[in-house]
Amino acid sequence: MNAMTKGAWKPTTPREVRQGCRTGYTGYTAGLAPGYVQANICILPKAWADDFLLFCQRNPKPCPLLDQSDVGNPRLPSLGDDLDIRTDVPRYHIFRDGVFVEEVTDISSYWQDDLVTFALGCSFSFEETLQDAGIPLPFLDKGSVAGVYVSDLPTQPAGRYSAPLVVTMRAFKPADAIRAIQITSRFPNVHGAPVHIGSPEQIGVDLSKRYQNVGDGTVREGELPVFWACGLTPQFAVMNAKPPLCITHAPSSMLVTDLRNASLAML
Amino acid sequence: MNAMTKGAWKPTTPREVRQGCRTGYTGYTAGLAPGYVQANICILPKAWADDFLLFCQRNPKPCPLLDQSDVGNPRLPSLGDDLDIRTDVPRYHIFRDGVFVEEVTDISSYWQDDLVTFALGCSFSFEETLQDAGIPLPFLDKGSVAGVYVSDLPTQPAGRYSAPLVVTMRAFKPADAIRAIQITSRFPNVHGAPVHIGSPEQIGVDLSKRYQNVGDGTVREGELPVFWACGLTPQFAVMNAKPPLCITHAPSSMLVTDLRNASLAML
Repeated sequence: MNAMTKGAWKPTTPREVRQGCRTGYTGYTAGLAPGYVQANICILPKAWADDFLLFCQRNPKPCPLLDQSDVGNPRLPSLGDDLDIRTDVPRYHIFRDGVFVEEVTDISSYWQDDLVTFALGCSFSFEETLQDAGIPLPFLDKGSVAGVYVSDLPTQPAGRYSAPLVVTMRAFKPADAIRAIQITSRFPNVHGAPVHIGSPEQIGVDLSKRYQNVGDGTVREGELPVFWACGLTPQFAVMNAKPPLCITHAPSSMLVTDLRNASLAML
Repeated sequence: MNAMTKGAWKPTTPREVRQGCRTGYTGYTAGLAPGYVQANICILPKAWADDFLLFCQRNPKPCPLLDQSDVGNPRLPSLGDDLDIRTDVPRYHIFRDGVFVEEVTDISSYWQDDLVTFALGCSFSFEETLQDAGIPLPFLDKGSVAGVYVSDLPTQPAGRYSAPLVVTMRAFKPADAIRAIQITSRFPNVHGAPVHIGSPEQIGVDLSKRYQNVGDGTVREGELPVFWACGLTPQFAVMNAKPPLCITHAPSSMLVTDLRNASLAML
């Protein structure tokens, strides 16, 4: 277990990762079980779930839904036949009435018969494909993530859910930007094509002002900033809606699924 | 025939256009037989054709080869079963040793048993698809074409053929630029995806200096210039190589083929 917490743990299968989470792994999931889809998690009471599903349906770029559980059922068999959402994520964040209350490593004590789990695609999948194509993502070499910004682009509200579009920024040389647009267009289930390229101010973004200082906002000479819809958008919508209970994964500690990244390619 | 030369002629089939060229039409081909592929033409002696084919093979973005005729045969049955390249283009340009000598409307008197015809895809096809997708191309409304520039991007030489990459520029709002990259990526036989987006100076282009003042170089506030490889590139290569005889279509007076634009989509 020490090996798991010290970063020396290198499980190659999603099942090993989930087993590790059940038995004490509480770290980040980047680099674990390479090639497999990692998912953003949002768990809500049924009374708050239907509008959230509609919000996802109306905003597929920030909220690409991989699967939704049955009500009260902690299993998501399409993502792993052993999967139990109460134990299989390294760390969870608990929100009450839209306010963060604590971080836990197991949500069995929070489980209710009316909870519904949403698993959403995340950009880790397309970043792996970009790297496979030889497109540099220098922030990964620094152990960072893409810069996160709150844009002034709208989303389509649904019931009590509304949010500005949160975006991630990655900077590329122009030819790589064109290739990145082509590649990510093939992956609509993990945010798909960019929403903007070029001038940040056109979408209300100041590159020096990252959301909670998350990620890397560097744009080198000759590079173009390219912006993708971000999975923090639905978290903003949940914070705005203030449901009595919401449980999410802790940032960068995702649910690791049995889906292969390559299986998400539309073409 | 007057109707044909005065622009009121609106043939809907490629066969009508070719028949018109045989009987006196000498105008532009934009807007004739909508939906069908129009081709750049380059006719060379066999001794100069093999290296030209290699140049096309090495540089598919500027030189997307639709078909090559048999030696001495003026027919291109894959592009139209009635097609005769000696008569079916409105106007031709004759080059001797790389120098323009005259414009003619029929090349029967120039025909030789060793001539080979190359038909290359052109951006008219993808422009139609962009318009169908609702992406504005304001230069078309002005009766103009995309701005043409000589870049400092290299091409791969082949034998006696070498040239800088000639490019066309179209300006878009960022979201339309992303969509234009997606759409043109589906059409590698008509130049395919852009070669550059953003700063013109990175590819040695000054937007105010169009090649021979051709086309529209306007970039409006908030727009990004996007650059595609241009079919003038092989004409540059031919001018550099100086073959004893080369026959091309006159600018904007293309060969209209039986291929449908939509049939060129790879996906």
